[in-house]
Parts: sequence; C-alpha cells; structure tokens
Amino acid sequence: MTTTDSNKAMPFEGLHEECGVFGMYDFDGGDVASSIYYGLFALQHRGQESCGIAVSETSGPKGKVTSYKGMGLVNEVFDGETLEKMRGDIGVGHVRYSTAGESTRENAQPLVLNYVKGTLALAHNGNLINAKELKKDLEYTGAIFQTTIDSEVIAYHIARERLQSKTAEEAVRRACMKLKGAYALVVASPRKLIGARDPFGFKPLCIGKRDNAYILASETCALDTIGAEFVRDVLPGEVVTITPEKGVESDMEMALPKEKEARCIFEYIYFARPDSHIDGVSVYGSRIKAGKFLAMDSPVEADLVTGVPESGNAAALGYSLQSGIPYGTAFVKNGYVGRTFIKPKQSSRESSVRIKLNVLKEAVAGKRVVMIDDSIVRGTTSDRIVRMLREAGATEVHVRISSPPFLWPCYFGTDIPEREQLIAYKRSIEDIRKIIGADSLGYLGMERLDEMVEGLSICRGCFNGKYPMEPPKEDIRGEYFDKEIDMAKKLERNL
Amino acid sequence: MTTTDSNKAMPFEGLHEECGVFGMYDFDGGDVASSIYYGLFALQHRGQESCGIAVSETSGPKGKVTSYKGMGLVNEVFDGETLEKMRGDIGVGHVRYSTAGESTRENAQPLVLNYVKGTLALAHNGNLINAKELKKDLEYTGAIFQTTIDSEVIAYHIARERLQSKTAEEAVRRACMKLKGAYALVVASPRKLIGARDPFGFKPLCIGKRDNAYILASETCALDTIGAEFVRDVLPGEVVTITPEKGVESDMEMALPKEKEARCIFEYIYFARPDSHIDGVSVYGSRIKAGKFLAMDSPVEADLVTGVPESGNAAALGYSLQSGIPYGTAFVKNGYVGRTFIKPKQSSRESSVRIKLNVLKEAVAGKRVVMIDDSIVRGTTSDRIVRMLREAGATEVHVRISSPPFLWPCYFGTDIPEREQLIAYKRSIEDIRKIIGADSLGYLGMERLDEMVEGLSICRGCFNGKYPMEPPKEDIRGEYFDKEIDMAKKLERNL
Amino acid sequence: MTTTDSNKAMPFEGLHEECGVFGMYDFDGGDVASSIYYGLFALQHRGQESCGIAVSETSGPKGKVTSYKGMGLVNEVFDGETLEKMRGDIGVGHVRYSTAGESTRENAQPLVLNYVKGTLALAHNGNLINAKELKKDLEYTGAIFQTTIDSEVIAYHIARERLQSKTAEEAVRRACMKLKGAYALVVASPRKLIGARDPFGFKPLCIGKRDNAYILASETCALDTIGAEFVRDVLPGEVVTITPEKGVESDMEMALPKEKEARCIFEYIYFARPDSHIDGVSVYGSRIKAGKFLAMDSPVEADLVTGVPESGNAAALGYSLQSGIPYGTAFVKNGYVGRTFIKPKQSSRESSVRIKLNVLKEAVAGKRVVMIDDSIVRGTTSDRIVRMLREAGATEVHVRISSPPFLWPCYFGTDIPEREQLIAYKRSIEDIRKIIGADSLGYLGMERLDEMVEGLSICRGCFNGKYPMEPPKEDIRGEYFDKEIDMAKKLERNL
Amino acid sequence: MTTTDSNKAMPFEGLHEECGVFGMYDFDGGDVASSIYYGLFALQHRGQESCGIAVSETSGPKGKVTSYKGMGLVNEVFDGETLEKMRGDIGVGHVRYSTAGESTRENAQPLVLNYVKGTLALAHNGNLINAKELKKDLEYTGAIFQTTIDSEVIAYHIARERLQSKTAEEAVRRACMKLKGAYALVVASPRKLIGARDPFGFKPLCIGKRDNAYILASETCALDTIGAEFVRDVLPGEVVTITPEKGVESDMEMALPKEKEARCIFEYIYFARPDSHIDGVSVYGSRIKAGKFLAMDSPVEADLVTGVPESGNAAALGYSLQSGIPYGTAFVKNGYVGRTFIKPKQSSRESSVRIKLNVLKEAVAGKRVVMIDDSIVRGTTSDRIVRMLREAGATEVHVRISSPPFLWPCYFGTDIPEREQLIAYKRSIEDIRKIIGADSLGYLGMERLDEMVEGLSICRGCFNGKYPMEPPKEDIRGEYFDKEIDMAKKLERNL
Repeated sequence: MTTTDSNKAMPFEGLHEECGVFGMYDFDGGDVASSIYYGLFALQHRGQESCGIAVSETSGPKGKVTSYKGMGLVNEVFDGETLEKMRGDIGVGHVRYSTAGESTRENAQPLVLNYVKGTLALAHNGNLINAKELKKDLEYTGAIFQTTIDSEVIAYHIARERLQSKTAEEAVRRACMKLKGAYALVVASPRKLIGARDPFGFKPLCIGKRDNAYILASETCALDTIGAEFVRDVLPGEVVTITPEKGVESDMEMALPKEKEARCIFEYIYFARPDSHIDGVSVYGSRIKAGKFLAMDSPVEADLVTGVPESGNAAALGYSLQSGIPYGTAFVKNGYVGRTFIKPKQSSRESSVRIKLNVLKEAVAGKRVVMIDDSIVRGTTSDRIVRMLREAGATEVHVRISSPPFLWPCYFGTDIPEREQLIAYKRSIEDIRKIIGADSLGYLGMERLDEMVEGLSICRGCFNGKYPMEPPKEDIRGEYFDKEIDMAKKLERNL
Repeated sequence: MTTTDSNKAMPFEGLHEECGVFGMYDFDGGDVASSIYYGLFALQHRGQESCGIAVSETSGPKGKVTSYKGMGLVNEVFDGETLEKMRGDIGVGHVRYSTAGESTRENAQPLVLNYVKGTLALAHNGNLINAKELKKDLEYTGAIFQTTIDSEVIAYHIARERLQSKTAEEAVRRACMKLKGAYALVVASPRKLIGARDPFGFKPLCIGKRDNAYILASETCALDTIGAEFVRDVLPGEVVTITPEKGVESDMEMALPKEKEARCIFEYIYFARPDSHIDGVSVYGSRIKAGKFLAMDSPVEADLVTGVPESGNAAALGYSLQSGIPYGTAFVKNGYVGRTFIKPKQSSRESSVRIKLNVLKEAVAGKRVVMIDDSIVRGTTSDRIVRMLREAGATEVHVRISSPPFLWPCYFGTDIPEREQLIAYKRSIEDIRKIIGADSLGYLGMERLDEMVEGLSICRGCFNGKYPMEPPKEDIRGEYFDKEIDMAKKLERNL
Repeated sequence: MTTTDSNKAMPFEGLHEECGVFGMYDFDGGDVASSIYYGLFALQHRGQESCGIAVSETSGPKGKVTSYKGMGLVNEVFDGETLEKMRGDIGVGHVRYSTAGESTRENAQPLVLNYVKGTLALAHNGNLINAKELKKDLEYTGAIFQTTIDSEVIAYHIARERLQSKTAEEAVRRACMKLKGAYALVVASPRKLIGARDPFGFKPLCIGKRDNAYILASETCALDTIGAEFVRDVLPGEVVTITPEKGVESDMEMALPKEKEARCIFEYIYFARPDSHIDGVSVYGSRIKAGKFLAMDSPVEADLVTGVPESGNAAALGYSLQSGIPYGTAFVKNGYVGRTFIKPKQSSRESSVRIKLNVLKEAVAGKRVVMIDDSIVRGTTSDRIVRMLREAGATEVHVRISSPPFLWPCYFGTDIPEREQLIAYKRSIEDIRKIIGADSLGYLGMERLDEMVEGLSICRGCFNGKYPMEPPKEDIRGEYFDKEIDMAKKLERNL
Repeated sequence: MTTTDSNKAMPFEGLHEECGVFGMYDFDGGDVASSIYYGLFALQHRGQESCGIAVSETSGPKGKVTSYKGMGLVNEVFDGETLEKMRGDIGVGHVRYSTAGESTRENAQPLVLNYVKGTLALAHNGNLINAKELKKDLEYTGAIFQTTIDSEVIAYHIARERLQSKTAEEAVRRACMKLKGAYALVVASPRKLIGARDPFGFKPLCIGKRDNAYILASETCALDTIGAEFVRDVLPGEVVTITPEKGVESDMEMALPKEKEARCIFEYIYFARPDSHIDGVSVYGSRIKAGKFLAMDSPVEADLVTGVPESGNAAALGYSLQSGIPYGTAFVKNGYVGRTFIKPKQSSRESSVRIKLNVLKEAVAGKRVVMIDDSIVRGTTSDRIVRMLREAGATEVHVRISSPPFLWPCYFGTDIPEREQLIAYKRSIEDIRKIIGADSLGYLGMERLDEMVEGLSICRGCFNGKYPMEPPKEDIRGEYFDKEIDMAKKLERNL
C-alpha cells in the first residue's frame, strides 16, 4: 500500500535515509548482478527495509536496464532465478533503511528512469535538507513525483542539467551543486559508472577493483566480500567517472577545504561494519580507541568489561585493553530477530529486550561489571539491560558510552528523535545515571572524537548543535518521524 | 523484473492498451474503495494483467492518496484487509491488459503523483500515437520517465499545463489537446473527479450515480454491478468535472463534429461486455444485429447455429432468430483457464484449444452447423475448431464472422498483428475458407457496420486502412509486439 | 491452520466431498504429471478448494512417490517448474471441494503413504456413512489419524487387508467391502493403477486410453481434454486393475444387481460437465431432456426461454426446442468470481448476486420469460434473480426447475442443508412460487427422472427420503455443516 | 514437493534430527501460543528448516487441536494474525533441523493426530536407531505412514500402548520402552502435558514455571526468554506428567543407573545456546573450561586469542583467561546469511566463507594468533579461515579445537559424515595441521571431557566408537545423508 502526500500536507519527505549503495562496471563484459547481490549482502546492516538491483549491458541496445526490487532482506528479495535473468556488465544496487512512515515498494531503490539521453539507474544514501525547496522549484516547472524519496529530486536535477552539460558526469556534478545535505550517490548511465559524495563527506563511498572491474561501495567490507581490492575512498565533494577508456576520472570542482569536511561520526560509532575503513580510518580501530579513552577518562574498579552486542563489543575490548580489566561476553543475542518478528504485546509476560538479549549468569554473577554501549537515546533499553545484569548477579554495573551525549537533532540522515525525547536533554549525567540505574556512568568526551578518527574533520551537530550548514528552519522531519525507533531497532541489527 | 529501455532503443512504448477505468466520488464522504473494487471486477474482461486502486479523503489533509496495485486479477491483488485500509471518498481504479512485453508492476495503474498543485491519481485506457514525440519534447525540457506507459506522458502534460491553467480540469483539457490517439481518462485531484474522452471517442466512458455519489466507468456493466444508475455517456472530446458544488460540469472545447467521431467498432464486436451500452447502443443488441445481417447476407441451409464462446454467442442467436435455424450450444468452455495456466508444450499430446474448448457431440453429431465467431485473425484457431466440430460428427461446418476481414494494423489500442500475419491479407474469402477447412465462409459486410451501431460514427481503419488521423510513419509497435497473441488470448476471456 | 478434532467431539468427519479424481499409467514409461494436470484442469468444476498430484516411476526404486498439493485451483497450485520435477509414469490426481469447515492443506489429496508393501497414492471422491464406526474400530486396534478425510480410513483398510491379500487389488476390494457409502477411488501402487466404484455407483468413474497409456477419471470430459479415447465406464461395484502385463482386469465380486444401483442424479442435473457421459448417458442430453419434460409438463405461453448460467442453459434449450418458444441469453455471468473474491458486506450497496450476474435488458425487456434453473435450495437467490428479471423489464417470469424439489438431506456427498432450511420442506409449490416472486413455478416430475437418464438406476434420497442404504442415525453432518452454502456457491462455478 | 519412499528402497528414514521442542500448559487457562512462539524463537538455533505450533483448549470440546506449521524460521512461518487465532491453554511447538533429504512440509512437527482416546500433539527431538524395525512391525499389523519422521513411529506406539494403559502417560512410557535411540518428547493430550527423555539422556529437556503455567523446553534459554523460572531438568529415562490437579508427576520406571547415561557432549560443545544449562551444567561454563584445558594442554606463545564465531568464542575466552594472552575479536560474521541465501557458484569469484566471515585486519595484523574452533569435520573451512588470517597479516596461526577429533559416525542425531570424509580418520594431528595450514594444532583431550561437564555421564561414540547401545548394523543414514553439510552449515547459525 502506498500513501502519497501532496507537499502541501507534508513539509519534507524521504528523510533519515541510512542506506547502502553499490555499483559495479566490468570492463570485460562479465555479468555484475551476482557480485552486486553479494556486495549488498555485505551492506545489509545499513538497511533492511527494501533492496534492489538494476543492471544493463553496455554492449547491448543503449540504455536497456533490467531492474528488480522488493521489500525485505537481500536474500528474501532475490532468488537464483531472478539473478540469473539480470544480464549486464554495469549496474547499481541499494539497501534501504527508513525511519519514515513511507515504507513502500515504490520508495525502494535503485531509481531507474528514461531521460533525454537514455536511461539512468541511481542509488542514493543520505538526506537532503533542501529537498522541499528543490521539489517545489521542479514542480513549478512541470515536474511530477511518483515517490517520496530524495533520489527522485536528484534524478530530476541530473536530467535537467544534462541538457546543458556535455557529459553525464558534468550533469551529475551540476546537479550535486544544487543539493544541500548528505549524499553518496552511485549512478549507472548506459556507458559510465559515476559516483559522487557531498562536499562535507557525510556519507562514505569507496572505490574497489577486481580484475578488470571497478566497484563503488558504501563500505570497504563489501569489497572484501566479493574479493575486490580497495583502491581509494571517493573524496568529499568528488565526482568520479568510471569508463573502460579512461579508468577512474576525478572531478573535484565542488570540493571544500579539508577543514570544512563534516563526516558523520556515527558511521564510526555504530553504522558501519567494524571491518570497514572509512577515509583511511578503521572503524574497528576507532571503536577500540573510544573504549581506551573511556578507560582513561572514566576509570572504575571492576571485574569484567562487556559490550552490549554488537556495536558495544569493540569499545569494550578497548576498555579492557587499556584498563587491564578482563573482557568477557555477558550477553547472548538472538540473531534470528528479523523484520517480521512479532513484538510482544504490552500486556504479555514477554519483553522485547529479553527476547533479543539474555545474560550469561556464569559470566557476571558476583562481578563488578563495566558495560559498554555506543549511545543512549531515550534510556529505556539501557535501564532494562542494567537491570538484567543485576538480576543475573552483577554486584555493580558501570555504564560507559562510546560517544558524547545526544543533545540535538540530526538533519543529515541519522535517526535521532526530538530533543524532548533525548535522555540527555536538560539532564545531568548524574540524572541519567539514576534513570538507567547504573552505579556509575561515563560518556566519551567531545575532545576525544578527533583522536578517535585520527584527525578527520567530522560533524558534531548532534552533540553541540553546530551544524556544518544552516539547518532547515522548520522541523523537516515533521509527522513522519517514527517515535518508536530506538535501541530496539539497533538491536535488530546483527553487526 | 522490470526492463526499461531508453527511447533510443525502442521507438514507442506502452502500446496497445486495452484497459478498464473506474472513478468514484461520494459527496457524502463514504468510502469508495470497495465499490471501485466491484466496479473493476465488472471490468475485468478489459484487462487481466494488473490492477490498482487509489483513493483519498477530500476532508483529510489535502492530497493524501492511498494506493495499491499488483499483477493479476482484481480478486488476486486485493484482499479484504487491504481494501479495509483504503479510506477515501474519492478514487480511481484500473485494470490493465497489455500485449506489449512490458508486463511489470511498475507499469500498473493508477499512476499516483505529486505535482505543483498537490496530488493526482490517473487511470487511462487507450493508446497515443504521438507519445514518442511528446516524450522526447518533455525530456528536452528535463522530464524523467519511470514507466513505459502513456499515462506518465499524460500526467506530465497535465502537471505542466496546470501551471498556466486556473483549474485542474482546464489543465486536463489543455493536456488532452496535445495528445493524439485514443484515450479515456479518469483523474482524481484532491477535490475533483475528472473524466476525459478523446475527440474521436475511440474508447468508451460513461457517467453513473448512486445516491449522492458519481461514478465514471469504461462500461455501463460496472454501474449495474455496484447498483448505480446510468446517467449518460461522456461525449467524444468532452471533459467532465465532478464536484459536490456543481455536480457534473461539461467542457466540450475540443469536441469534433459528430461525423468525425471514430468509435472503435471492436468495442461492440468483442471488447465490451454484452450487457453494456456504449453511446446509447446496446453491445448485445449490436451483436444480435450482426448475426441477423450475416443470416441475411450469407444464408445457408443448416440444422444448428452455434457461437464460439463467449463473444460469438450473441451473433449466433441473431443468426438463429433471422434464419429460423435452431440455436444451440456446441462448445463447453473451461472457465478456469487463467493467467498462470501452463500451456502445453508443442511436443505434448495436449493442445491449448482442446484444453479450453470441448465439443458437445450430442449437439452437433449428424448436423449441418453454422458456427459464428467474431473475427479471424491468423486462422489457426478457427482451423482447429472447425476440425473439432467435424470430429464430433458435424456433417457440414459453415463459418460466419460477425465483422469484416482484418486487413490493416490498428494504432489506437486494438491488438492486431502485422498485415503479413493476417489471414485475410492478400487472400480471397475462398482461400481463407480452404485454410480453415469450412464448407462455406461469410464475413459481415462493411456496409452493415453503420446499421449495426445505429448510425454512430466509427473507425474502420483495421478494415480499410482509412484512419481518422494520420497514422505514425514508423511502425510504432516495434519490437514489443507480441506475435503469439491471437484467438487463444481471446479464449482466455470469460465473456 | 489446521483444526483437528477428536472423534469424541465431532461425530463424523470429512463429509460432503464432491471431488474429481484422475489416474494415469503410461506403459511406455512417459511422464504422466502434465497430463494429470490437464485432466484435473478439466475436472476443476468438481472441486476448487485444493488439489494435488502424486506420481512415481515404475522403473525406479520401488515405491518412490513424488507428490505436491496445495489450496486453490489447479493453475494456482502448480507451476511449470513443479510439474517438470514430477517424474513418473504412474500417478493420481485430485481436486477437492468441501462444504465442511475443514478446509486445510492437511486434508488435500492424494493421500500418499507407506505401508507394509511399499507406497500407495490414493484419491477419493465420495462420502462414507460408516466412517465414524470404521475409524473407531481402527483406533481400537491402534490406528492414528492425521487428517479428517475419509481417504485415510480407506487407506488404513487397504493397508490392513493387504496383510491377508495376495494382491493390492484384492486388498482394495476387501477394503471396499467394509466401506458404506459413496466412493470412486483411484489408487496407484508401485506397479498398478487400481480403480474402484462403490456398488451403488453413486459417483462416476471411467476408463480412457491414449496410445499405450490408460486413464481413470471422474468424467469423460477429462479424457477429451488430454486427447484420450473413452474405453468404458467402471461399473458400480467394480474394481479395475491396470497393468502393462494384463491391461484392464475386472473384479465384480462386490457388484449388486443392476436394479439396486443408485447413481447420484445430481451428477446429471448439475455436478458434471455437460460434455461428459456417465454410464453411457450424455449429461448434456439428460439436461436437454429435463427441459423438454418441463415444457411438456409445465407449459406456459412466453416469449423467451432462458437458463440461469451455467447449469440451467441446457435445460432451457430443451424447453425451447420442445415448446417452440425462442431460446435466448438473459444473463451475463462474471466469470472472474473466484475463491478469493471478497464478498460484499451486508451493509454495503453491492450484492453478491448482482456482482456475479447481470441481466441483458435488451433480451428480456417487454417479454414473458421462462427462466430455467437446476434446483432451488433455500430460495433466496431465486428470489433475487426473478426480481432482477422484472427490473430489467420482463413482464412475466415463469420459473422451471430441472429437478424435483429437495426434501431430504443427502448422506452421500451432495451438499444439501438441513430440512428446516429447504424451501420445499413443508411448503406447497404455490407457497414457494410466492416466496420467489414468480408468475408460475414448475418442477421436474419424479416420474421423469428415469427417462431423463435412460433407465439407469438412480438414488432419489434427497427427493423422497428413500435411501439405497440405511442412513446414519445421528446427523453425521454435525457442526461442520456450513450453512452459508447454497446457490451462491454454485454460481461460482464456471460450468 | 514431497518425496515418499517405500521402506523397501530406503533402509532408514528421518535421520539426524537435531531439533527444539517446547510445551506449555497454563493452569489458569491463558493462551499459550504466543509464549510457545517466543520459546521456539529462543530455540531457533536448534533448527531452521521448519517449525510448528499446536494448541488446544482444555476447557473446550475435548481434543480440538489447532495447529499451524511451515517451512522456514519461526518469524517467517508465523504472523500475528495466525498466532491470534490459535486459542488454547495447552500446546506444543517444534523447530526442525534436518540433514536428510526429506525437507518437506509434511515432515514438519508437531504431529497432530486422532487416536482412540482423542487427540495428541507431539514434538520430538532425537533419532531412533530401531525406527526401521518398529516401522516394519507396525506395517505388518496394518499401519500406514504419511511422513518419514520418527515421530510418527512414536505416535503409533503411544496409540497402541494406550489400549492397554490406564493413562496417557503410561502409554507414553510403554511406547518409550520400545524405542531405541535418542529422544526428548513433548506430548500434549487433551488434559495433560507429558514430557519424556530417553534413558541415556542424549537430548536435553527441562521444566520451567511461570505463574501458574508449566513449561517443557529443550533448553533453559527458552525459559529465560519468556520470563519463566527453571524448575529442574527432566531426568534421563524420566516421564513427567503435568496436570493442574497434581502438578509435575514423575515416572522413573525406565531410568538407567546414572553411570549408564550418555548425554550428547555436542550439546555442550556447540548445539546448545551458551546461556542454557543442561543437567545442571552451564553450557557457557563448559566451553570456558574447554578453552582453559586447551591452554593448559596445548600452550603456545601468542599475541591474540580469538574464536571462530559464534561457537568458538567462549572457548577462546577460556583460553585467554588461562593463558593470559589477550582475547580479541578477529572475525566479523555476516548475520544475514539465511536459509534462502544463494550460494556462490564454483566458477564465481565469491566464496561462501568470505561472504559469511571477514577478518578484522587491525585485530590480527602482525600478530601471532590462537584461533579456537569447536570442531574440525572435513577441514576445508578451517583451511580457508587460516588462510584468511594469514592474508590479513597474522604472522602465526595456532589452531585449537575445543573437542577431541571426530573418528566415528553418530547414530543419535548429530550430523557427522562418513568416516572416510572425516579429516581425522586415519590421519595424525600433524597431517591435519598441514592440511589446514596451521602453525600448530591442538585438540581437547578425551580425558578432559568429564571435567568439562562436571562429571556427567556422556556419550563418546563419535570420538572412540564406543556407543551406549549397539549401533545398527547397516548404515542407517543411507542415501539420505547430505554430504555437503559441514562447517558451512554451522556458520549459518547465529549462536
């Protein structure tokens, strides 16, 4: 069922898209669909709502694109027969996560379209803050919108800029220059694979190579999975064009000075897979460091350091390494909680947290436990997990958070609720500690972030309200923001 | 799986759409989705490939549209739960039939879109012959296309004309004036239900009323089914606008003189349900007449008149009434042959015709049979059916066809193959008779058509090559024309 | 979802099974699955609830059976890939209709089982009246039941009798001798195809041949569909065994004197397809005769004779032939009403009858109409159809029923509600005429039945309460009888 | 598609069932279906092939059972609507894992059946070694088999013994006394929940309680998940009967002396969830111990101890604790590999192992790594993982296995291939080390097993060929044994 709102009724659409993108072009003419499948599979943690693949044959009739998309996980949507039919040596894929209400097949990506120069297939990760204005402008010149995703706005701009551009890549760059916000784009034109990353570099995008094929992917783990080598990251503000004739060409026209870059720190803290490297920095390494800093800055005497799975584990190891307190597993996570899992009713004796996590009594009984988590949003889940540890016999529970407190909304794709719902909003650390029932509580200091990501320039908007660009005046997240999403959603991820 | 071709590779898209449209607006605010469901169900014979419904609440946030579509029959795509969720007092529905290769969910209708004035839901029956040029023009001003259906071209024009129009209906009319070809359109804007019929009146569209609700439908049988009264036909070239304030308003600006109208005669011959009336003429009545004319013009001594089910039955009754030869049922049709039926392999002992039809030996054995069919396209099926009658003991088989011979392609939505494949092309009636193995063969005379439809002005392009407008120079049906479709396809219909 | 009741709670299970069975054995070793598919397809009118096929290779490892079954129509349950995988030169198929509440996949047939001598696949049409006792007896010797269908009871008996029988066919016959009620059985053992028909011959079963393959089928129309020749009917009380060595062998040990046979007359009146012959009598011919008798016995002056589709059509032709009143089509039936059709709510403006049937005003306006139907059960539908004819302008409506009035329940598989719900129960014909609003009403006379089926011995239990065997004392139909089934259900059939 | 083989062709069926069972009886009459759902969800690691739930109302008509089962994970098979309809205060559930070819819906459990005393719902975990003989015997007294699972054999025995037993529990015990092999049974009769464990205690079964409801479950983690308290383990050889009148009753008639018990050690090594306790021993604790023993018995100088996820992690922690070598995570496992995952083709560049596992270069580069796994079956996966570590920069890779080498087949439910395929068969440890490419290799010593499970009596058949009962003479695993199952299958598990 699709619900389409006029932009009268809904100020801003397609918000808060954390997603994964993957593009591939095999210069030797081999089919890329199955490699895209495995690539998306490696990026599945970035989006479990829907996915899709679009491919075309560069040697075939110009611009014939075969695409398939659906709701669900990569291995639910695709079967061998479907992949088999998707012939093409160039293509893009997408996995989608959406916190907005618009969870429909219509909004699945890649977006495939005909325009003046043939066809385009486009996959996008990120969130535009001027999509509303852009949409209005487009509509005032006769555009129609069939989805509520930003990608359609981007596609229109590419199509329109194409009229005044010599090449597709020029059109992509000219379109990008009109966009404000976060985006990592992968575009397959009939003969070119084009990638673009916004000037702030909010979202990651990297280049890989396997034999005579080039890959663009949100994370390096997708390269490892398909046996490709990492070539380099696409730079913030860069547009790369991949063709058999010229290999990888770079256009840096819209790049900013390095110090203005504003990577999303949450890619390191929990979005990305730990085995990925983003802009030269190991995600795993940054988490280990965060844990070490916590041990230095918020030390405590304890018998066990443990992480809330999965994203807290690396920081817990770091804390252990620094503090000398033994690391251990305290939780067993049920890895089968999926998209279609039936949540217990309020009235029932079961609880969502207990179904997803169980405590290893042997590991914690009689021990003073340091429990590391990546963040606290509303605090309700933290409260329950602390209680579970105590019930299992932990004598003390010291909570350490591998990020600073959330105090501000994010407009660039990270799913953070309204300030009023943030536990840290207008509360002292001591207040929070009491609410979650911990014996002590420590957050990662803001000053540690630089070191954590080896000096890369990052966005700290959710911590200090200072955004790399003027945020929209009205709350663009509007009615679509789903207030139920929190730790529980994160717990459903397997990495 | 969707295959999207650039318009470079494919000269013309979305051809040969025989479809059914249905729109409803309940001024009392009642939900219309379930009535649209039953309306589409009555129009199911016009298209079994895909279907969809889009509704919105005129009292709700302006322009919120809920839509649902899918591949398959109305009762396969919709279930009670889905219908239940579709709240809205205004809406449109569509059933689609496509002979083109593009049988995909992306191409299902209604098309739902946001544009400068909010939302539109649009359902379309017909075929544009200038869609290619219109698309090119649109693309040269920055349009993107996500489907291969004409409806998207129409929607763009409405959106663009809306910028210079005072009202939605004006925009619809201005858009229509750019379209060449056949169309019956139903459009739901946030507060208006709009219907339009091309100036030639190729495709039917009528207005109905039930209590305080107005209906637009391809055929009157859909009105009967939901218990609505027939109000009148939408006239060729008319744009009607339905609002609670003004009821039904008419705009005849693009209407042609009556004698230029060019209704598709095949609506009467076999598309429409016999219980429908189109432009004041009973479909059943016109078939009865065709049969009577055949009896007058091609008389024969025989013991039994029978029709090839279902479309030949009424003409057979007419032949019987006129000739006095008893009417009888000679065939049993298996009504369960559906969309997903597995066709027998060439090598197997089963044949498609025998699976779908069986002869009643008791009815034909020892008899001279007049067998009435609505048309002969390639002749292969006729040949088999004649043989089946003989095997069942018919001593003579006289074939009468309730339409003139097909000699020319149709560009306006009727599925007729290339001239070279038409059995009547470059063949005498006697030649055809021999091929199909009949004892005699008679076609309806061209001169009878006027009388058959009570003097309505009709298109005879497929019989004499004289089209009401200049046909496109290149064969717009291109590679997409499916050469396998013929009688077999018609036999799958249940009416 | 399966609901299994203990036989404590439910006196009798698996009642009222009108079904279709089909078996095939290709002595040349060809695969039979696709022919079974087309055969079931021709028998689809006998059951739309579920279907299944089981095949095995007589040359393969003894007794390996591949089976597949599911809820829905033959073309919904099977696809090409599934059929392709079903290798085997011997097999059976089944289509199921059930009026009982137990509409589950567990109850789909064929039943496939391992027993002491290998495997059996079994398909059954009919209804046992001593199933309860048999089940009890079996349970008292340790049997377990996993379904609620009679076939499981039969299978157990075959398995048990096999221990004391020299051959499988002997075991089948010995088992049959314990069964009371109606059954037409097709059983595939590893090397034999066995058919059996109860001594009364309630249910039909015939033998066909195509090249070197033999077929057993509920109706001859299934033979025509797959291009097989009719060999002969299986006789009431006969067990036939089909092997490559001996062809068709007959065992008549349990046959009764001819005059004790008790065929279900409703096979002729409406169950069977008109193109079938049962025990030498044409179904179509018997309906024509019924119509002629009605014309003789209940003549009326009128302008048009018409049938309620589909089962009333042949009798209407007969009435017309006899009376000289012209035959005509007065109704258009929507052939797309399927299993998953959403029925209108009581509160809605739509009605089930109007959605399924529409009247051809042209055909009936201003005319005195004779409307032929095969039966009246509760009368509610008849009432609506008569009203529809009047609303369409019929000046008189004379109803003729091609069977005598229902007055008694059926225990042998025909779905007739409790006496209290039968319109004819404790009412005169005049009373009924008033209720349905007809100008006159005539039923087929009991004395005409013999002539109608050319002297075959038939069961008249539902008309006069005289059953060929003692009916069960308690009402075995118990709580499972679905009170909503009536004409509406019949109307959903396409033949 | 179901393939049923006669027992002529297939010596033994339904082998190698590792499964999870769950039963619940709420004395207060509350519905148990959703708690069973969550319980099965916690046992999902024991079987991902199919699952099912059967419930009934003890206050309702005696023996009405509602059941639902299907192929796939618990959250794929069940949705909220289905659960909602499953009313009942007593019920059983099952998750199935099968290495045999018979992966069909017919073989899904629970088995629901009618027998002389009403209905039974039965769920079974384990493998009988005399099923073939039992089946033969049953068939020789007229039994029929509709599945190829041992549960049907058990059900028959219960049904037959019931005739000579005063109570259902007596029938269960008498039936059990005829069974040879491994079984943990949960049976719901109309008014009783019965559990049974074979005398050797191969498979685990425990009792829990929540408010006034009793639970039987394969593992204690299922009790935690639904918020129930652990009461005690069902003892080897015990039959427990749970009724509102008498609570938990115990029947120890078939129990053996403690020293004859023969628990499957692989429940501790990798089947069970680490947060479960079996027979009083913590699974997690036993794995920690195994790791410690490895550190004592196979010490090595190294920089990092890591586990192959998930089952190697706890032993790795133990090794680290004992040796002082830091524990670390070296692998990222893709948790989204599911049942429907498309395996890469041999020819493709992707490999199954790399898709499922990636190495954290940061964690291992330049380090001497101790890699702990729970077992080596064929060695192919170990070889690849060792190579991945080296490619990631590990300078040394020392493999430690937390179990003794596999040398013999298992007849009691553990999926171990033929001896010829076991890497340890006829090879020295040094040979194996070379094959997998490790710098050193150490297995857990046989003598450590006792200590590992705190002196519980265990089965060591797969290590030393000494089985607690005479193994079947012919290889009962026959043709059905799937030779492709190995580490890859284990890796698909999430715990």
